[in-house]
Amino acid sequence: MKAYGSLSRDELLSLRQDLEKKYEGAKAKGLKLDMSRGKPSAMQLDMGMEILDTVNSSLPATSEDGTDCRNYGQPDGIKEARELMGSMMGVLTENVIVGGNSSLSLMYDMVSRSMTHGVMGSTPWCLLEKVRFLCPVPGYDRHFAITEHFGIEMISIPMNPAGPDMDQVEKYVSEDAAVKGIWCIPQYSNPQGISYSDETIRRFAALKPAAEDFRIYWDNAYVVHHIYEEDQDVILDILSECEKAGHPDMVYEFCSTSKISFAGAGICAVASSKGNLDDIRKSLSLQTIGPDKLNQLRHARYFKDLDGIKAHMKKHAASIRPKFQAVLETLKNELNGLEIGSWINPKGGYFISFEAMPGCAQNIVSLCKEAGVTLTGAGATYPYKKDPNDSNIRIAPTFPTAEELKQATDLFVLCVKLASVRKLSEQ
Amino acid sequence: MKAYGSLSRDELLSLRQDLEKKYEGAKAKGLKLDMSRGKPSAMQLDMGMEILDTVNSSLPATSEDGTDCRNYGQPDGIKEARELMGSMMGVLTENVIVGGNSSLSLMYDMVSRSMTHGVMGSTPWCLLEKVRFLCPVPGYDRHFAITEHFGIEMISIPMNPAGPDMDQVEKYVSEDAAVKGIWCIPQYSNPQGISYSDETIRRFAALKPAAEDFRIYWDNAYVVHHIYEEDQDVILDILSECEKAGHPDMVYEFCSTSKISFAGAGICAVASSKGNLDDIRKSLSLQTIGPDKLNQLRHARYFKDLDGIKAHMKKHAASIRPKFQAVLETLKNELNGLEIGSWINPKGGYFISFEAMPGCAQNIVSLCKEAGVTLTGAGATYPYKKDPNDSNIRIAPTFPTAEELKQATDLFVLCVKLASVRKLSEQ
Repeated sequence: MKAYGSLSRDELLSLRQDLEKKYEGAKAKGLKLDMSRGKPSAMQLDMGMEILDTVNSSLPATSEDGTDCRNYGQPDGIKEARELMGSMMGVLTENVIVGGNSSLSLMYDMVSRSMTHGVMGSTPWCLLEKVRFLCPVPGYDRHFAITEHFGIEMISIPMNPAGPDMDQVEKYVSEDAAVKGIWCIPQYSNPQGISYSDETIRRFAALKPAAEDFRIYWDNAYVVHHIYEEDQDVILDILSECEKAGHPDMVYEFCSTSKISFAGAGICAVASSKGNLDDIRKSLSLQTIGPDKLNQLRHARYFKDLDGIKAHMKKHAASIRPKFQAVLETLKNELNGLEIGSWINPKGGYFISFEAMPGCAQNIVSLCKEAGVTLTGAGATYPYKKDPNDSNIRIAPTFPTAEELKQATDLFVLCVKLASVRKLSEQ
Repeated sequence: MKAYGSLSRDELLSLRQDLEKKYEGAKAKGLKLDMSRGKPSAMQLDMGMEILDTVNSSLPATSEDGTDCRNYGQPDGIKEARELMGSMMGVLTENVIVGGNSSLSLMYDMVSRSMTHGVMGSTPWCLLEKVRFLCPVPGYDRHFAITEHFGIEMISIPMNPAGPDMDQVEKYVSEDAAVKGIWCIPQYSNPQGISYSDETIRRFAALKPAAEDFRIYWDNAYVVHHIYEEDQDVILDILSECEKAGHPDMVYEFCSTSKISFAGAGICAVASSKGNLDDIRKSLSLQTIGPDKLNQLRHARYFKDLDGIKAHMKKHAASIRPKFQAVLETLKNELNGLEIGSWINPKGGYFISFEAMPGCAQNIVSLCKEAGVTLTGAGATYPYKKDPNDSNIRIAPTFPTAEELKQATDLFVLCVKLASVRKLSEQ
């Protein structure tokens, strides 16, 4: 295929005419599809239904140590759930607190607590002139929404193939005491599916922050979320790397079973040093009389251990792999050589990140929307929803059925072509 | 029985000798009982076990409107759970948001959000010189712990038989713009079991706050928690009273099923005006991608409606009534006429509030502790854990078995006598 940029004006106009016509045809189909969020499909959720049978009226609702999981108490979570979540993150049980159904809440609470109470005795951030967070881009919109909500200034850091640009991270963190945190999704990042290299992670652990209360927000959301059986990424354990580097308190690690068991009814966890966990406990003990221990018990009984989780995630992989492959195949077949977009073939996670020609992302998303396919809003992957190049689009292939996905992707590539040719023909 | 205060010095000393001996005997029994918290007993929790069977692998996990309760979404909670919790509070479904397993978290979040973001556009409290909360006393220690945690100054308001001293409440609320809230447990208050009279509630609704962001924190924790079949308190609905009085935004009402279904695995709710709920939603939508809807579904399916909850609570009442009666009986038989303590016979809730002779509460609690019975710490029912008279003790009769309760109460009255006679004989 010939690159659009090399077409003559006549060729462009003729192509445009052709694409406009096709697009009108596509609109006439009256699609109504949602590819906006990284949601597991009903089929994936079905795979975990037996989790719900592990706690019922015929079974004792006691954890291994005899705790009545129906009653109040145990703000850290039950031991077997802490073990399970710890094993997933590769950290010791004593470094883990297990919570309710949302790791996002844990992150929100962490920022909120830092605003009102500081971090391990530091000045509450709400009393500071300026608080900044580093935001690798493209990144996760809900991370950015939390920091924006608290009036924290966000600084974009470009993502490279091995993780965030560490030269920039090091410079900001070591020189600016207002930089209090960085959002990271270290394995199969949202949306690019990039895993941080060992070198990147060691450079994180070796950071020398100007602020004593600087923390790495390490959202290990996709730690067991591989797409392929063989070709899987493994990343270093940030907690032990930070400890080795003499900075045991520098990181909070988060994970959840939202995309393992049930998106709305899983369990979540935070792992960190004793110092940080004790700091968290001070608020947590006032905030709740304990998490939902019955749901923790369900998960611990069903999965048993890391092997149980891995076996379960193989089923998920088998279900989502064809979806990722279908999208990637269409992108390749339809767009290769046209030089109007690029994308990464992810090995895990929930997204495919697409880079359109600069200035085209919003148009593409609007065109899709108009023809009945909702994508994540263009710009969502950047702080303040402002993609300076207007080029990144996040594709979420997991939720739709295979048939829906095919229709949606066909429409997507058509809209990419149309938006690009409009742009080029108007220059 | 003769009042201790009227005994001669010789009588006092001889009584003291006798009681000291009995106390040594009690200590020798080596009891190990916990009456410190208002926890449901295992028997009460057993009554709800079938809740756990309403969601399992053989049943569709969809709510009535077809929502897949396993997936993300619906930050307000599923409709049938909102209806259920709304009916319990006597408010419209549209005024209800249903959350996770802890109404305490809702209250904590409300205060936390007000600190960082203000209330419906008001100045964030963390930017104010001074923020005050009114605290009817004796009251709930966990309420006071939240306000203390956020550096909010607490002002004690005495409780009267019909609720808080409304003259004082009106004066503080109307004259001091730093007063931003008041903690209320309007029905079967913790620890006294007092229900607010209609007049009290109407005076609440008619408050004219100096602060636009003053809110009543109406913790309706014991709304269906009667002890007797016949003699039950009913209170006015504060939401409609506030609306009638032209102050629709002045109240947040909280409730939960923690002491209906499972203390650690129930569901909670907040009811308020559209203005307040929209304000809450702004944060809530960033804080989580939705509550645990499967647990909401369990509750809605099991209880069905308010009648279902009431029927269930009759079983609870039957289980806890003998416990309350046993304690009250012992108090009466052992302490009546001695003039060393008074108490209220509650008609609902989870506690019996005991007023010892001034200056004796800490000693009584220590004596009990030394002999193996843990009570709620003396002072816990007051802001900053400081009971100015050192006289209030909260008794929580629900958790122990009948046998344990008898032993604990026998020890309690012995310790009340001993501490009182020590005090009197040392004067």
